Amino acid sequence: MKTSNEYKESLRRMKPNIYKFGELIKDVTTHPSTRRTINGHAQIFDAALEPEYENILTTKSSLTGKKIIRYLSLIANAEDMIVNVRMKRLMFNLTGTCTGGRCVGFNALNAMWTTTFDMDKNLETNYNDRMKKWLIDAQNRDITISGALTDPKGDRSKSPIKQKDPEMNLNIVEETKNGIVVNGAKVMICGVAAANEIFIMPGTSYNEDEKNYAVSFVVPRDIENLTIVETRHPSDIRDQEKGFDNPVDIGGITQAYLLFENVFIPKERVFMNKEFNYTKKAVINFIALYRAAIGGCVAGQGDVMIGAAALMARANGLSEKTFKQKINQMIINNETTFGMGVAAAALGHKHSSGVWIPDTLLSNVNKVHVATLPYETKRLTQDIGGGIVETGCLPSFKDINNPKYGDLLKKYLKANCSSETRAKIARLIEWLTIGAGVPGCMHGGGSPDSAKIMINTKSNINHYIELAKRLADIKEDISIENKK
Amino acid sequence: MKTSNEYKESLRRMKPNIYKFGELIKDVTTHPSTRRTINGHAQIFDAALEPEYENILTTKSSLTGKKIIRYLSLIANAEDMIVNVRMKRLMFNLTGTCTGGRCVGFNALNAMWTTTFDMDKNLETNYNDRMKKWLIDAQNRDITISGALTDPKGDRSKSPIKQKDPEMNLNIVEETKNGIVVNGAKVMICGVAAANEIFIMPGTSYNEDEKNYAVSFVVPRDIENLTIVETRHPSDIRDQEKGFDNPVDIGGITQAYLLFENVFIPKERVFMNKEFNYTKKAVINFIALYRAAIGGCVAGQGDVMIGAAALMARANGLSEKTFKQKINQMIINNETTFGMGVAAAALGHKHSSGVWIPDTLLSNVNKVHVATLPYETKRLTQDIGGGIVETGCLPSFKDINNPKYGDLLKKYLKANCSSETRAKIARLIEWLTIGAGVPGCMHGGGSPDSAKIMINTKSNINHYIELAKRLADIKEDISIENKK
Amino acid sequence: MKTSNEYKESLRRMKPNIYKFGELIKDVTTHPSTRRTINGHAQIFDAALEPEYENILTTKSSLTGKKIIRYLSLIANAEDMIVNVRMKRLMFNLTGTCTGGRCVGFNALNAMWTTTFDMDKNLETNYNDRMKKWLIDAQNRDITISGALTDPKGDRSKSPIKQKDPEMNLNIVEETKNGIVVNGAKVMICGVAAANEIFIMPGTSYNEDEKNYAVSFVVPRDIENLTIVETRHPSDIRDQEKGFDNPVDIGGITQAYLLFENVFIPKERVFMNKEFNYTKKAVINFIALYRAAIGGCVAGQGDVMIGAAALMARANGLSEKTFKQKINQMIINNETTFGMGVAAAALGHKHSSGVWIPDTLLSNVNKVHVATLPYETKRLTQDIGGGIVETGCLPSFKDINNPKYGDLLKKYLKANCSSETRAKIARLIEWLTIGAGVPGCMHGGGSPDSAKIMINTKSNINHYIELAKRLADIKEDISIENKK
Amino acid sequence: MKTSNEYKESLRRMKPNIYKFGELIKDVTTHPSTRRTINGHAQIFDAALEPEYENILTTKSSLTGKKIIRYLSLIANAEDMIVNVRMKRLMFNLTGTCTGGRCVGFNALNAMWTTTFDMDKNLETNYNDRMKKWLIDAQNRDITISGALTDPKGDRSKSPIKQKDPEMNLNIVEETKNGIVVNGAKVMICGVAAANEIFIMPGTSYNEDEKNYAVSFVVPRDIENLTIVETRHPSDIRDQEKGFDNPVDIGGITQAYLLFENVFIPKERVFMNKEFNYTKKAVINFIALYRAAIGGCVAGQGDVMIGAAALMARANGLSEKTFKQKINQMIINNETTFGMGVAAAALGHKHSSGVWIPDTLLSNVNKVHVATLPYETKRLTQDIGGGIVETGCLPSFKDINNPKYGDLLKKYLKANCSSETRAKIARLIEWLTIGAGVPGCMHGGGSPDSAKIMINTKSNINHYIELAKRLADIKEDISIENKK
Repeated sequence: MKTSNEYKESLRRMKPNIYKFGELIKDVTTHPSTRRTINGHAQIFDAALEPEYENILTTKSSLTGKKIIRYLSLIANAEDMIVNVRMKRLMFNLTGTCTGGRCVGFNALNAMWTTTFDMDKNLETNYNDRMKKWLIDAQNRDITISGALTDPKGDRSKSPIKQKDPEMNLNIVEETKNGIVVNGAKVMICGVAAANEIFIMPGTSYNEDEKNYAVSFVVPRDIENLTIVETRHPSDIRDQEKGFDNPVDIGGITQAYLLFENVFIPKERVFMNKEFNYTKKAVINFIALYRAAIGGCVAGQGDVMIGAAALMARANGLSEKTFKQKINQMIINNETTFGMGVAAAALGHKHSSGVWIPDTLLSNVNKVHVATLPYETKRLTQDIGGGIVETGCLPSFKDINNPKYGDLLKKYLKANCSSETRAKIARLIEWLTIGAGVPGCMHGGGSPDSAKIMINTKSNINHYIELAKRLADIKEDISIENKK
Repeated sequence: MKTSNEYKESLRRMKPNIYKFGELIKDVTTHPSTRRTINGHAQIFDAALEPEYENILTTKSSLTGKKIIRYLSLIANAEDMIVNVRMKRLMFNLTGTCTGGRCVGFNALNAMWTTTFDMDKNLETNYNDRMKKWLIDAQNRDITISGALTDPKGDRSKSPIKQKDPEMNLNIVEETKNGIVVNGAKVMICGVAAANEIFIMPGTSYNEDEKNYAVSFVVPRDIENLTIVETRHPSDIRDQEKGFDNPVDIGGITQAYLLFENVFIPKERVFMNKEFNYTKKAVINFIALYRAAIGGCVAGQGDVMIGAAALMARANGLSEKTFKQKINQMIINNETTFGMGVAAAALGHKHSSGVWIPDTLLSNVNKVHVATLPYETKRLTQDIGGGIVETGCLPSFKDINNPKYGDLLKKYLKANCSSETRAKIARLIEWLTIGAGVPGCMHGGGSPDSAKIMINTKSNINHYIELAKRLADIKEDISIENKK
Repeated sequence: MKTSNEYKESLRRMKPNIYKFGELIKDVTTHPSTRRTINGHAQIFDAALEPEYENILTTKSSLTGKKIIRYLSLIANAEDMIVNVRMKRLMFNLTGTCTGGRCVGFNALNAMWTTTFDMDKNLETNYNDRMKKWLIDAQNRDITISGALTDPKGDRSKSPIKQKDPEMNLNIVEETKNGIVVNGAKVMICGVAAANEIFIMPGTSYNEDEKNYAVSFVVPRDIENLTIVETRHPSDIRDQEKGFDNPVDIGGITQAYLLFENVFIPKERVFMNKEFNYTKKAVINFIALYRAAIGGCVAGQGDVMIGAAALMARANGLSEKTFKQKINQMIINNETTFGMGVAAAALGHKHSSGVWIPDTLLSNVNKVHVATLPYETKRLTQDIGGGIVETGCLPSFKDINNPKYGDLLKKYLKANCSSETRAKIARLIEWLTIGAGVPGCMHGGGSPDSAKIMINTKSNINHYIELAKRLADIKEDISIENKK
Repeated sequence: MKTSNEYKESLRRMKPNIYKFGELIKDVTTHPSTRRTINGHAQIFDAALEPEYENILTTKSSLTGKKIIRYLSLIANAEDMIVNVRMKRLMFNLTGTCTGGRCVGFNALNAMWTTTFDMDKNLETNYNDRMKKWLIDAQNRDITISGALTDPKGDRSKSPIKQKDPEMNLNIVEETKNGIVVNGAKVMICGVAAANEIFIMPGTSYNEDEKNYAVSFVVPRDIENLTIVETRHPSDIRDQEKGFDNPVDIGGITQAYLLFENVFIPKERVFMNKEFNYTKKAVINFIALYRAAIGGCVAGQGDVMIGAAALMARANGLSEKTFKQKINQMIINNETTFGMGVAAAALGHKHSSGVWIPDTLLSNVNKVHVATLPYETKRLTQDIGGGIVETGCLPSFKDINNPKYGDLLKKYLKANCSSETRAKIARLIEWLTIGAGVPGCMHGGGSPDSAKIMINTKSNINHYIELAKRLADIKEDISIENKK
């Protein structure tokens, strides 16, 4: 297993193909736009060596028996899945934000493991074998793998082939003896800068006439003809500044647009090639895994918000007991998303491929919580923190250190601690609630509306109705005319 | 194992000591005030025989290896505890309300199993042996056991011995060679009418000067010198009426005041006798078990509310799709309390006595949800159901069947179904949301405020603060002066 | 102006035509099913004489210049409307519940004043003159007038004439020289037992082919061929009991089904006769008036809940400060529905007939609050009150006074006050939150869903869009294809 | 009255004393850090000339009878106050954010008008005369006046004179024949860059030993010895960029730290000089005015969010009807804060000085809504907008226009409109919900916790208790022992 330095070295060896603000990023490990997210991902390697975290971050490979990082493992049972939820919480605790360059890939490879298994069984393909070979190799190389599902999609009221431009979803444009050629894009992809490889899978289910979109594969991040453009996020120019205005150096997020221009994928790395019938199940299994695990993410960031809020209370001279009920609510919010993830894990089932799939209903219920509860937690953090944290309402690092008036600012920023500490806490809360640390918990892993549709799909209204009829001894069947 | 008829027969054989409205109830299985709750409890015996429910309602005794009803079992692992949550949901599904004459007893005996084990280990007592003998016998007799914790308490600002009347908490007034004599009361006790025996344990923790209150034992419901008075609940006179105004015949709740007047308890049935040091842990373990499991209760009643609401929508001529988002929210509420119970179970730990204790933090978080989410579910049920359900806004059964004007009422009550069916649904919703079916989910198992205190106790604010300090690289320690 | 005794006397003089539980109520002022609501309405007459309340409950008639009860007045300006909101709050304060036998009539006559004015202006009818004569007479007689809008409606997916039975909405079946004959029913009508007359108006808007449903008139409550059946509400048999189990003697609600069997209405009392075009505006004006005013109702009951909760806290030995944040939230809920009613009044406009119509948008926004916030207030009341109040969890009055065991119950019900006081508070909270005092705030005056439709109707999405476009300097017009 | 150009010219004529990022801002009307907020404030002058807005933005001076901008007027009645709420909503509509450089000054001068009036009456001072002269002159000069209340405060657990550094609150350090000298700071002050003068008043109430803090005055923004440092807010470096990444050019906020170093204030401009007894009422009146009016602010920004969300829905190819219920909730949130402000205005009272003071209870209830509802509105905006808006998840303006790969980005950003339009909408939503447009609605005008304290102060718990006791016929007085 790699050290964090070896990990960074592996990134440095790759060919630059990531841009931001119109410029090519030469070294992602040092460039201000990417180095924080890489620091965050590097913490995984460090923490894996600490006895305290070892059981969370590492496991034994079911393929080789060797000790591996958990992100490269197959999730085999409820316990594995619960540890996955814990791992996400831990990484948000350690980095303050998302280390998305690993967990989407982790979930995608598990989802596609089930799909390739099913395809091979039914279609006599050999996708699962390919995946197995690749995965053993990936475990041996101890690489980081981001995952990419979201297509640009274009006009949401039209299906992919009805778009003016049919390339709004990533698609296969050519098949050769040795592989396939793909065109299109995957957008808003987390943590690509921190990844050695990118695992691609469909972002939605497809019909027969859309089979060219039914594609899954894995590529090195620096593959030929792939251009990556990082999006800009709130306050991201502070990445380039010194001082505490960007308060966190050991974590950060990136989200990228991946532009595929006739990229050739060798067939050993292709895990789905037009088998449209299997896209739906692949996506549903991904969702079940992902939407259970994100409960840990937002709980992990919520933990940091509790700490930051309590710290600012103390900095202001107040005991956190003053805010007991608010902190209580924050804990409830965190434990709810965490707990629902655990519950989805506990009530899951084992797919015949050996992968454990969390309960779809609970997983999707949790997605709705993940899209609401953290917003209350953020609001409470700002409530406790006071005006100084709400919109980052304090002068810049440069001003606070200005020779002319900086001393006056320091004088007035002091409370029950030094002005610098108070400024750092204020900036941390800004970062967490309205700055660069805010992750995409609303739409990451799909929108809450899509989760609500899954919730309805997974609930049988007639079951509920029968319970009520039995209780009140109602025999009459009530039917509703089908109206147009 | 008993049949439901044998169960009812066992109740009939007991000495009458239950009163309501100033009168002694001669036969609890037929008296209007108690027969519905007994019908509800009897369903447990019937359902235990159905293959569909067998695995939920029965298990193998860890003491005898025989098949027993789950309510008499020791909870040995997470899976047992998860099935407990499911069992509560099932019983609310089948009876529409609480079968509290079993689950409190079930939780109490498991909690006291851990406590008697610890006492025996540390104090060289033989409480656990006594419990074991009694429990094997109870399993063999297949009896129903309600549980009683809540004392009258008096003035909440004063401790038990500071009360004007020191008997506001149940207490030991005499010790003899063969047993103890107790005085006092336990109040608001669920399902006593449906129970063969009553398991008593402390409702709170006690100090040394309060050791006379540290008492646990089990008694036949009809023990000498115990008088039981049933409380009245909303719309409870309808129990005595015919027709659908009381719409549910196969379930119902009772809550009783147990008045102990120098009741003698033989020592084989005494499981705590002044060991005040062990009261706190006993209560905490009870809480962890109980507050996890009630997530299933309110989910189970919520399921019925979804069904009743959807049925009324149809009765009114509307598809339940009209109320899609509301039903979605109801499902989310149900699955959240259910899921949090499952999560508390999954993250529990095994006590050295062999009993599985759910996670205290998640259990108490769930108690807060249980005290809030069902209220939203009820509101949505009334929202979907329309004016006719809100305050039971329809004429009585007698009026609807009145020879003079009943036909006119029937004419105008019709919608997309018969008037009788519509009336039954309306009464069912009234029963569920503002009538006799409403269980005590707010304060049952303790108040949400007591859960919030447990949540704070179980959360280490400094842990959160350290996470925040590490992230923002803050070294300064901020201390708060202790103020009076 | 009448005294409360004269008012009761006026009711006694009327012909009995109200039934409950299959029996004719001979004297509504003494019958247990109706006397509490009449006591509540009688308080209006008493309070009107008290200097403290005089300005709220009385005003000067704009028709005669005489002092009249406000419920018989025309609402002429924002101030009048604000006092209307205050009056509703006051009456809930004084009776604990709804005095619906006056306010629906009050709103209906104001709404129909505008409609008759418009009809007369456009159609050369003389409805407004008829109304004026009747209203002057009503003011002189100082009568109480309930209002009735809601029709049985039948299958909600079908329009009135598409129903199997076209009489599911009240309709004109014959026109004679001297009047009209109507058939059908009005259902769930508040406070009819307390009314001298009933004001009927359409419950929805009608098209030309539905013109027979476009009818408004006023009748004595005891008019020939009108049969009235009271609905039963939660715990309503306690009306017939003695003691504090029904804790409020000076207030109560009734809701009735009015069955019209070829009732002849003389033309002087007919205010709309098939003018279908005017039904929509009549209903909208009624809604604007009604949904503003109900903010006062739920605030008024909320005030009582705060008091009852704080009183129980004290009874339990706790200061209300223990529950500071909960009480705070209850106050916020009350002041929000009250304030939104005031705001709708303040932003209203004067109809050319002289009646002040509150702002429709704010009025309907308030309806949504009225259908949600009081539910939270109830929940908090139960939360503060403890287990004893949640489901009325205490023995009956009869049991507490039982010679055999009543003293023991009294002993254990004591806390920081006498057992009787504590029992009364518990029953009051039961009555307010889950008993006979719960008014129909969810669907009274229409469902929250209907309010949401009005909110959307009153909001111009393009206005909002233009604001956004202007700010971000967006010129492109984005149109959405109309899809089927 | 000035034109917007004359207004900008007036700012340019002032002496530079504002800093950001360590540098002096030479011309606030053109400097990237301040020009947007000045553009926003300039819109007031333009809109005042438009017939559509004239009645909102201008009024007749009660001092001179001349037409003046409303921000310089005395609020004389409910109608004036309601228009104030509307004015705030309008300005958020037109600028997308806060024009805080006027409204705090407006509220402060009205609050101090009441206080100076009271002081003059009781203490025979002549503060109100001074204010009158200054205000007539200010109206004639048509100047912009920001207001400043918030002191640095230091350790919140200690009173001002107990602070290690007693200058944590602005204080009088010297009195001369001609005026006073002050030292200290006012912090987080809105819109100073857009102001000609700054109105200072106490931020809290003071006791006798704190009388040096009891000070109010008005100064030119560029007064000698005043140094102003602008705080940095989220994404504020985009102010310096070109293109749509900072999407709004006609509005923006600034918040400043004002550093007073022995600033001399001539006595004509001093409106309170150590009269500590009057600080409490001054602050309460300010709060009543301010917390009513801010309901309009957040409603006005909410309007823009509805528009931006609906526009993004269309840009994505979806009708806003898809999100009907969410938009409905957003409207309800906006109208609630707006309506509660109107209600506080309508129920206000006239101070003997002639100023109208909104109802304190409703005003403070609204503050709590203002600190919560907009957060839900923001969340719903992000929910409707999709992943692209959540964290501003799209490439930068520079990248979208990059010659190498910009065309590909444009291709994939297209949906049901051009890529540029879609990018602009996304950036607008980022700006509104997590960017530079977010105003300080949580703590601006004081924290929600301080509003809750005012709510409790304004509510008499015994009044509520008496209502409950009367209803349930309870005579017993229940007292709670005073415990320590």
